[in-house]
Parts: sequence; structure tokens; C-alpha cells
Amino acid sequence: MRQSRLFTKIEKNPPKDEESLNALLLERGGFIHRLMSGVYSYLPLGLLVLKKIEQIIREEMNAVGGQEVLMPALHPLENYIKTGRENISDLFHTALGNGSKFVLGQSHEEVVVPLVQHYAHSYKDLPLAVYQIQTKFRNELRAKSGLFRGREFPMKDMYSFHLTEDDFEKYYDVVKKAYIKIFERAGIGGKTYFTYAAGGTFSKFSHEFQMLTPAGEDTIYTCEKCRIAVNDEIKDVHKNCPECGGALSGPKKAIEVGNIFPLKTKFSGAFGLTVKNEEGKEVPVFMGCYGIGLSRLMGAVAEVCNDQNGLIWPESVAPFSVHLVYLRSDDKNVRAEADKLYEKLTVEGTPVLYDDREDKSAGEKFAESDIIGIPVRAVVSEKTLKSASVELKGRGEKDFKLVKISEIKKYVK
Amino acid sequence: MRQSRLFTKIEKNPPKDEESLNALLLERGGFIHRLMSGVYSYLPLGLLVLKKIEQIIREEMNAVGGQEVLMPALHPLENYIKTGRENISDLFHTALGNGSKFVLGQSHEEVVVPLVQHYAHSYKDLPLAVYQIQTKFRNELRAKSGLFRGREFPMKDMYSFHLTEDDFEKYYDVVKKAYIKIFERAGIGGKTYFTYAAGGTFSKFSHEFQMLTPAGEDTIYTCEKCRIAVNDEIKDVHKNCPECGGALSGPKKAIEVGNIFPLKTKFSGAFGLTVKNEEGKEVPVFMGCYGIGLSRLMGAVAEVCNDQNGLIWPESVAPFSVHLVYLRSDDKNVRAEADKLYEKLTVEGTPVLYDDREDKSAGEKFAESDIIGIPVRAVVSEKTLKSASVELKGRGEKDFKLVKISEIKKYVK
Repeated sequence: MRQSRLFTKIEKNPPKDEESLNALLLERGGFIHRLMSGVYSYLPLGLLVLKKIEQIIREEMNAVGGQEVLMPALHPLENYIKTGRENISDLFHTALGNGSKFVLGQSHEEVVVPLVQHYAHSYKDLPLAVYQIQTKFRNELRAKSGLFRGREFPMKDMYSFHLTEDDFEKYYDVVKKAYIKIFERAGIGGKTYFTYAAGGTFSKFSHEFQMLTPAGEDTIYTCEKCRIAVNDEIKDVHKNCPECGGALSGPKKAIEVGNIFPLKTKFSGAFGLTVKNEEGKEVPVFMGCYGIGLSRLMGAVAEVCNDQNGLIWPESVAPFSVHLVYLRSDDKNVRAEADKLYEKLTVEGTPVLYDDREDKSAGEKFAESDIIGIPVRAVVSEKTLKSASVELKGRGEKDFKLVKISEIKKYVK
Repeated sequence: MRQSRLFTKIEKNPPKDEESLNALLLERGGFIHRLMSGVYSYLPLGLLVLKKIEQIIREEMNAVGGQEVLMPALHPLENYIKTGRENISDLFHTALGNGSKFVLGQSHEEVVVPLVQHYAHSYKDLPLAVYQIQTKFRNELRAKSGLFRGREFPMKDMYSFHLTEDDFEKYYDVVKKAYIKIFERAGIGGKTYFTYAAGGTFSKFSHEFQMLTPAGEDTIYTCEKCRIAVNDEIKDVHKNCPECGGALSGPKKAIEVGNIFPLKTKFSGAFGLTVKNEEGKEVPVFMGCYGIGLSRLMGAVAEVCNDQNGLIWPESVAPFSVHLVYLRSDDKNVRAEADKLYEKLTVEGTPVLYDDREDKSAGEKFAESDIIGIPVRAVVSEKTLKSASVELKGRGEKDFKLVKISEIKKYVK
């Protein structure tokens, strides 16, 4: 993409009331724009990051047999009366012109259970797992922390359905491993811990994936050997590592980036979702649910992948692989060569942001390139062209190297 | 995808109160499931169709310089007070716990104008066009006609911003041509007409793309020579073809599948969106908006691409290119060969739905294959394997041909 055509600009003065580092960095770089507290627009660069995160999650959910669907956000209130969740405080309520009452989904048990009930009648139809990447709404009075706690946000939610509790537990473990892969692929694996947490009203425990960050809302205690953690809320139950029994280290601040939850028969029971087992007897269906907030994950990556100059995207979720920076020259040949290189890389399939702007100095371009944080910067100028080269520099590195244009592909994806 | 694993099933008895052909066909095939009137879930097969439509639209919007963003559905009511649209009847209203009033977007002028205002200040920043593929909400009392008139639906909406009315008009024509391409690529080009229509409160005219169908809600008069039409609502203004002056033929029933609209300075004026022109004077920005409902387009294709046995998807939007149908055999080698062929095609990049079910007869499989409507059916059975072949049949065709397995790729995408 030609930067001269990008409608967003680097923000010199991000909103003064934006307190969180992730939102400050992302607004400054032109990735997101705040419409109101907890409600953001994703701009061209930000949407590219979101789509890369989406694709990583999709691949890993498909790999564990998830079937992708897209369920609505408008839910009939009556379904929540069935599950006893009609009065939970973070639901947005709305109504049709004739008074029919709806809520906006902040989760989809009330929709997915009747959907699966329509199709699954026999043990032969199980196990099954459906997931979606869809927009959630949460009536948060104090939306804060940038992308960490939103009123509207894209989320992947998967629901699994099983004939037995044993089968559910096996699948739960499979999804746990898929989640570990997702956070590794997104570049925060080293800071993220599978965490034992409290379960809420109908399950004693749940499991979170917590990423260490001083901006986190949660407190955890980690076991570095097992790469697991215990949430402060159940520290009295787990004084030591639940896996190796060793000492836990902490407290440490962390943010939840994923959550997996045994639903057991809570929601299948509410809707009467049963299947015939092999003996022809109707039995309740065991369920699990598995969530990851896409924008929260984007915020988490931004929160920890940066330096004082701006963002440092991991290659896997970067909006582009290369930031090609053309330095203004009176020699028109320089611009022509830069254009040619941009087109060549693009045609070959390398995602390139091309700073082709004529009205910016080298200093401004380098500063903005650091703010945006694309993994590799390739500078093309009168000087580099003298040796048919570009200056390559990794965003997190200090030194650049002069690389022949004919050999660039060895250094970029 | 293996059909034995698909959680949806062919619906033998679609909802009795579903009146529209598109929803009946799509629910029968397991593409969509109705949560309530005008609100559907997209199931695995339906989501694949929706994604193909999305990709066609995205490519054509990118080709005309559109920059993709994703704006929120929750909008502050105060923005609608500024534009005087706070009382329009088809808005869903909701509120935060503290009473702050929001509406759910059925269009995004009230969000995109302040967004662009944040970044565009000079004539140098124009023209620009931003678009999104995002979920819209419409408080429709009488949601009906299946996917044609929904309360919640995915839509592509683009907004363009120009320094002069003349520049706007040139771009409007460019987008018009992109829309014609989209409908052609989606397989309904031959039935779709660029249509002169009324403009609403602030513009005398707008333009629709109307697809002929007896299920349509609109009435149009067509000029076959110019491939354009006039909506009945402005027939008194255009008694003849507005382009060649020839006679119009009609009335004909049609459904709107796209809409392009001159907004001029209506919304830029409401928010005070101006830019400095070349003389340094602040001037109002001219705008256009351009919409296509994705699910409506999916419904439109379903409504006209079918026969008495089920859907007939155009290749461009089909959920899969090939429906590989294995016919049960006691010879285990038949199943092994079918599996091998499925894997080979999949690895080579052909999207295949593989009916690997052991408990269905040939008759049931053929009937279900017709209902789903994948462009090419490839039957593999004991009989076909005797000549190392499959039986290929186009969904819209009567006759099949025996084709060597080694030569399948000549016949499928």
C-alpha cells in the first residue's frame, strides 16, 4: 500500500484522557480511532492486524475440528429468561417497534444451544464444536484500558457438545493446547500462562490464559517450570503449583487474553438439549465454551511489543512485512527505482507499506516508521542506489545492513 | 470438508411460516437457520457463500481505491441529533447502565464523517473513500422475505469524500461500474439493472441496482438496449429511457441488491467537515455513499439460481467447487479410493465437499446433492472405479460423463 494514499495519519497528540498504553500506541500509529469509551473503529492498518489475528485463530480452531458459523448479535430476551441470565448487569437491552424485547449478545450460549438442538439428536451427532468470529456487546459502565475492556469488540467464541463428561474433558485439553499455539503464534507465548481461575456460579473452576503486563487487571502467581499460573482469586485453594506442587512466584499483574470454561449441562439443561445414547436413552449433553477477544489480543500484543519509539509488531500479526521508505531526491531516477522495487515486492507477494511521500523528511519518515512498527524497514535513497542496494533494519534492532536489491527476498517474508 | 462431520443436516421440513423462496431453499440446504424473523445464523455452508460474496465485493472496492476499515455498531445518539436522524423509525435504541443513549447503526454517516474529519483537513487529503463489511441493525416491524429484509445483516457500505461536486460525480460513475462487475461476478448480472430511483429527503435522485424476480418488493421498467431501468416511484419523471429516450418495458417485479447515493454536503455540513482548498479557503466536502447487503445478495442469488430440486450456485459464490459423492460399497477399496481422491483434490486446492457417509443410499445422496447445489457433482462408486473414473455432472445439467480420475482437473476449478 502506498502511504501517500493512506487516509490515516500519525497522531501527534493522542486523546489526553486515554490512559492505557495499548490504546495510546495504537491511536498514535493510526491503527484505531476511539468513537467513545470502549468503542473503537479499526482503521486500515489496525484492520490488517485484526485480520491476521483472526486467521491464526481460525486455523487453530479448524485444526481442532471447529465448524465456523456466524450467529446474530440480536437475541430474544426470552432465551435469557430460560437460562436465568436476563438480569445480568452487562447486557445491553433493546426492543422492536412493537415492544418485543431483545438483548445484544455478550456471549452466545442462548443462541448456540437451540441451534445445535435443531440438528443434534443422537450420540452419532456428537461430539461437535462450532465457533464464530463475531462482534460482542458488553454494557460496561467503566470501559477503560483501551482495547482490554470494551463495550463492543470482535471475539472468537467456540462451544463444544459431548455425550459424556469424559469426552468433554479430553476435548477441553485439546483446545487448551490449541490456545497455547495461538498465543505463541501471535507473539506473546513467552509471557502467557495457562491459569487456574474461579468458575462463577455454576462451575467451581475455569481456566484463563493470562499475559504478564503491569497494565493487567488480574493478579497471578506463576510456576515457571510448568508454565502455569494461579489466579489470585483462588490462591487460597492452590497455595502451590497445581501441577508440580512446587512454590508459586508472585504476585504478578496480568491481563486475561483467553478463557476456557466447562459449562457441563448448565445450558443444555436450560433448553432441554439431550441426545439418544447408544442404548436409546435421552441423556443431557456436556458442553464447554472457549473464548478469545480479538481486539483484546491485539491490545495485548501492542501493550508488550513496543519500545519508547513505538510499536514492534511480531511478523505473524504485523500489518505489513516490510516498510519500504523512499528518501526524497532531486534525481527522478531514485523515485522511479523505489516505485519499481515496491511493485516488484508486491507482485512477488510480500506485503509492503511504501512510504512514497514527497513532502516528508528522512527524519520524519524514520520516526513514523518506528511508531507504526512494521518488522523490517527498507530504505531506498540516492546513496543506497549507488550500490543497487537498500538499507535493511529490523524494527527491534539498532543496526542496519546494506543489502543488494536482488537479494532482499532472503531477508523478508 | 467431510459431510459426515458437518453438523447441519438437510432440512426435510423447513419452517412452515417461512414464505420466501430464498429462505426456504437456504434453510432446507442447511445454509442458514432462523433465530427469529429477520435474524438468521449463517451455518458452515452459508458462511462459505457469504465469504465468497464478501471477497468479490472487497476486491472490487479495493480496485476503486476504497480503504477498508471496521466501524462500530454502537453509536452515540448525540451524533444523530446533529444530523436530525434521531427519530427515524428503523433505529434500534439502547443505553448504557448510567443512561447514556446509543443507537445501533443501520448506516454509518454519523460515524464515518467525524472519523474522516479527524484526518482530512486539506484538499491534498481528498479524494478518499473508506468502506467496511460490517453488521447493520434495522428495527423492521415486518421483517419478511427471508434474507431480503432483515433486522440484522452484514453489509458493505462505502463513503467517498471529494473537494468538488464534479470530482464526486466522476467517482460515482467509477463505483457504478464496479457494482455492475460485482453483480456479474456473483452470477446475477444478466438479471440486474442500474435503476434510476427517488432520492429521499435531501437528494432528488439515487440509483439502485435491481434484480428481476417475481419475489421483488419493487416495480421497475427496463430498457434492454441500455441495460438500465426506472423505478416505478419516479416513472412520472422518466416516462422513457433516461439514456436513449426509447420506450421502457414493464412493469416488472425486482429486488434492490445495491444502492448508490449522492449525499452531497448533507452530512459533512451537519458535522462541519470542511477542508482547505488550494486557495486556503475552507470549503464543504462532497460525499457519496454506496451500499450492498451481503446476505441480501446471497438471498438474491438463491432466489434466482435454483430448480425444483434445489439450489444451483454459480461457481463464483458456491460453498465448494465439487461435491464428491461416494456410493457405499462392500468393497473397502472403493471407500479407500474415494478418500484418496478427496485428499488429492483438497491438497491440490480444489474446494471439495465429500459425501463420505456410509448410512445413506445413492438416491438420498443425489437428492441432497441437488438441494445443496454445488456446481459439479463427482460420483465415485464400484462401477466408476472399474474404469478408474468418476461420473461428473454439472448441477444444472441432465447428463453425466465418465471422466478418468487422472483428468478431473480439466473439468473443475
